[in-house]
Amino acid sequence: MSDGTSSAGREIVVVGGGIGGLTTALALARQGRSVRVLERADGFTEVGAGLQLAPNATSLLRDLGVLDAVLDAGVVPARMVIADARTGEGLVSADLGDRFVKTFGAPYVVVHRHDLLDILLRACRAADVALETGKDVVGCVTIGTEARLTCADGSEYAAHAAIAADGLRSSVRQALHGSGEPVASGYVAYRGALPIEQVERPHDLDTVISWVGPGLHLVQYPIRRGDLYNQVAVFKSPSFASGNPDWGGPEELDAAFADMCPAVRVALPSLQRSFRWPTYDREPVDRWVDGRTALLGDAAHPMLQYLAQGACQAIEDAATLARSFAIHDAAGADDGGVGRALAAYEKVRVPRTARVQRSARVWGDIWHIDGTGALLRNELFRGMTDDDYSYADWLWGWQPPTG
Amino acid sequence: MSDGTSSAGREIVVVGGGIGGLTTALALARQGRSVRVLERADGFTEVGAGLQLAPNATSLLRDLGVLDAVLDAGVVPARMVIADARTGEGLVSADLGDRFVKTFGAPYVVVHRHDLLDILLRACRAADVALETGKDVVGCVTIGTEARLTCADGSEYAAHAAIAADGLRSSVRQALHGSGEPVASGYVAYRGALPIEQVERPHDLDTVISWVGPGLHLVQYPIRRGDLYNQVAVFKSPSFASGNPDWGGPEELDAAFADMCPAVRVALPSLQRSFRWPTYDREPVDRWVDGRTALLGDAAHPMLQYLAQGACQAIEDAATLARSFAIHDAAGADDGGVGRALAAYEKVRVPRTARVQRSARVWGDIWHIDGTGALLRNELFRGMTDDDYSYADWLWGWQPPTG
Repeated sequence: MSDGTSSAGREIVVVGGGIGGLTTALALARQGRSVRVLERADGFTEVGAGLQLAPNATSLLRDLGVLDAVLDAGVVPARMVIADARTGEGLVSADLGDRFVKTFGAPYVVVHRHDLLDILLRACRAADVALETGKDVVGCVTIGTEARLTCADGSEYAAHAAIAADGLRSSVRQALHGSGEPVASGYVAYRGALPIEQVERPHDLDTVISWVGPGLHLVQYPIRRGDLYNQVAVFKSPSFASGNPDWGGPEELDAAFADMCPAVRVALPSLQRSFRWPTYDREPVDRWVDGRTALLGDAAHPMLQYLAQGACQAIEDAATLARSFAIHDAAGADDGGVGRALAAYEKVRVPRTARVQRSARVWGDIWHIDGTGALLRNELFRGMTDDDYSYADWLWGWQPPTG
Repeated sequence: MSDGTSSAGREIVVVGGGIGGLTTALALARQGRSVRVLERADGFTEVGAGLQLAPNATSLLRDLGVLDAVLDAGVVPARMVIADARTGEGLVSADLGDRFVKTFGAPYVVVHRHDLLDILLRACRAADVALETGKDVVGCVTIGTEARLTCADGSEYAAHAAIAADGLRSSVRQALHGSGEPVASGYVAYRGALPIEQVERPHDLDTVISWVGPGLHLVQYPIRRGDLYNQVAVFKSPSFASGNPDWGGPEELDAAFADMCPAVRVALPSLQRSFRWPTYDREPVDRWVDGRTALLGDAAHPMLQYLAQGACQAIEDAATLARSFAIHDAAGADDGGVGRALAAYEKVRVPRTARVQRSARVWGDIWHIDGTGALLRNELFRGMTDDDYSYADWLWGWQPPTG
């Protein structure tokens, strides 16, 4: 074995250095554990720009000591608005100010993905997490009380436990659940962050606004202390259903938004037309743990973005995993504590994330509904008050169990 | 000319002796006008059992002096309920008691169609309306200041004005608007009124309850002083779309309701399986008047039954027409007053009934919606209070203009 053997298998190895992986590494390192992160890419980076952090995530980032840095890099929006993309009518507004923080005990923050990753990376370095790039883990098996990891470059690692935070197309998940492909939604996203002074309709820039329409939506909010305006346009590709392998092109983007209101259409030219992100999720699965290996984040529960909970759920995973280790494997001894910790983590996280995965699909359906359903949605939304957070209690008020 | 000529063309002739026709005849006769009703069938009768009369109709029946008889023959239900046909959950309830009457100035009544027709018939007789059966009007033209009507039996009538209340497949309408077929909804109704003591789930018998589900609904309420329980089951025929000429058979009824809750399924055996009513409407039209002839009721604005307004709108038509005559043709002289009266009637009734026709379609879509739309509908309905009638103000609070 290579360098990995030097730590004599007492390390916890995290596969994947994205937001989920680094949060997990940080949470475990905060307990004084020896943690190593193996990242496939040549650097630590994130795809995309804006990221929403609801209080179920920000409260956990505060526990990890990084929330102040996140607040400093991001924006606390004044409110969240859903508007009709066709008519421009504001349908419902949720106050994200003092009442919100009082309700959930933590703020709603929007931040650039790179900025959050940088904050986590610095915190991991300060906590002595071993961070390696260019490490493409291609094998992961449990032998006795060790997880044994093999990388594409031939290096090997032995670990107390291996946490697979390697994303939607996780190779560790594949070993556990077979080679099933993720589920393509037929929706595709176009992104475009632009300097705030270039925003053509500079109103409500302190708002997370989601314009919802038939088979499409546009989300806009400020990031990077308000210097950048993050925009994501999403629509259902008409050619996806017909099997076009090149589905979701920019001409479909234009056609999808052609009948939307001016406030929506004005955003289109500022989107990057040369890049697009087809969106995927998977059906929830019950098994995340195999021997000394456990799945985390998108590797465990990839979800559609409609609840803006992808990163938040990975952060919940990380905090729950660390608490499970603290409860069941406090000594770090080979007395079966790792198995109990991983089982406890799985037991808590599987139903929670399954609900979020399923609800994200439904929420997307609500955003994208047309016809009579859209009439009903709009009327329902109009009747909601801006300080009634009861619909989101289950989502934003969640905390990992403490015992 | 035959017997019709004896009245020297001063009569108003109403074509069709259903609820709309008889209400029209009564309203005009109350003004001292000479009125004749020509009914195609060999007797005065109505198809179907239960009929709902909202306050926009009962207030007008009160003006005609027949509401007490209707109240005596019918039932004033305590409330109107919409429930989920699949789960059995009550979604929304509207109080039809004192608060309702105070709001709309008149009660909500459910009554047997035959009973209402009998009341109107007796009132017409008492008001000296000439009532003829077996008179199938096949021609109706305006010559000078007279409407000339020709029946299939060769008899002819000359009239001051002819009001065509001859239903969905009105021959007078056909002369005005061509032979366009009504629009088949693809939905079919099965009916079954049964003695109240045979009701298997005898609860809430003082309620108009509509069980709504995916592509189907069931409406139940008591009629005939509470002695009979009226039931109508409606569903979208799966074989209608495929062009099956025999669409909507009882085996489709059973299949459509198979997954509904027990409280709904228990009603099915009491429906008449050998009769079914495909439901139709038409697109609204702007022109109801041609010379001395005007359309009224289903002949003018056939609508789907989802707002239970078919008879109510015919009654509104009748009252509006009578008021228009009172205003514009008080003298009954040939000074152009009939033309002004018919034009005023058309001007008021065309936009009103077009809105009801269109809203009935939307309301049906709301009742029959499935999937995410049904989630939204149910949540919207759950949030409504039982004394908030604001959604129905436009419908139940309508009154004919007085000037």
